[in-house]
Amino acid sequence: MTNFHLHPRLQADCLSVGHLPLSQLLLMNDSLYPWFILVPRRTDISEIHQLPPADRQQLLIESCLLAETLHTIYRPDKQNIAAIGNLVSQLHLHHVARYRTDPAWPAPVWGKLPPQPYTQKQAEARIGRLREALADYLLVEA
Amino acid sequence: MTNFHLHPRLQADCLSVGHLPLSQLLLMNDSLYPWFILVPRRTDISEIHQLPPADRQQLLIESCLLAETLHTIYRPDKQNIAAIGNLVSQLHLHHVARYRTDPAWPAPVWGKLPPQPYTQKQAEARIGRLREALADYLLVEA
Repeated sequence: MTNFHLHPRLQADCLSVGHLPLSQLLLMNDSLYPWFILVPRRTDISEIHQLPPADRQQLLIESCLLAETLHTIYRPDKQNIAAIGNLVSQLHLHHVARYRTDPAWPAPVWGKLPPQPYTQKQAEARIGRLREALADYLLVEA
Repeated sequence: MTNFHLHPRLQADCLSVGHLPLSQLLLMNDSLYPWFILVPRRTDISEIHQLPPADRQQLLIESCLLAETLHTIYRPDKQNIAAIGNLVSQLHLHHVARYRTDPAWPAPVWGKLPPQPYTQKQAEARIGRLREALADYLLVEA
């Protein structure tokens, strides 16, 4: 775990929300959709099935926790959950809250529209709300 | 379980490979990529987190089994695994074996290119190979 480094592309494209027991939780810096990413803090893993069984379980727990929380906060019409990684092979699991009225609907969001970065105030509001909802689970670095 | 009906759109777009304990396994009728779909045989479920815990676990097991099998058969450069469902809300989990040389790379496959249906011979070969690899787990209807 000490050797884990977030891929530079994820670091550049995202803001950190905090840490769950297995994964770092990121906010994609694109205000078009509520879009979060779980990155298991494991090295040299690009596919879910490469994780040892206990980590697979924990990723499922964290993914469902995040999905339930996004449901509570955002009431989306659909959640899109995906491990793609064609550009960034470090295993990361997208969670996107989708609405029939969002600009990419019904297409998936990847590569569809140029990202619209948050203002600092918008990002703080979105991150703050999720941190509050996940307060019992999330470790937030000072 | 007896009330489960595969969504007509999945029925139209896919060919059946067989049944795992929880999910029906489908082959997307698009010869551009090795593209399979798991559909848990549960009614009125559109999100993974809506499944009861035992079903979540079983879906994870079946997804990893399928991913390991696709790795063995196809040696892809990357697997794309996704629950999207913006058009078909019945929960279904895509598994696509991707190559740097495939026609959509590095984009995700959804909505990218018109599907190229298999010939009957091609479909039988692809399905037959997967059935053989999953023979210990798969129930194939007569």
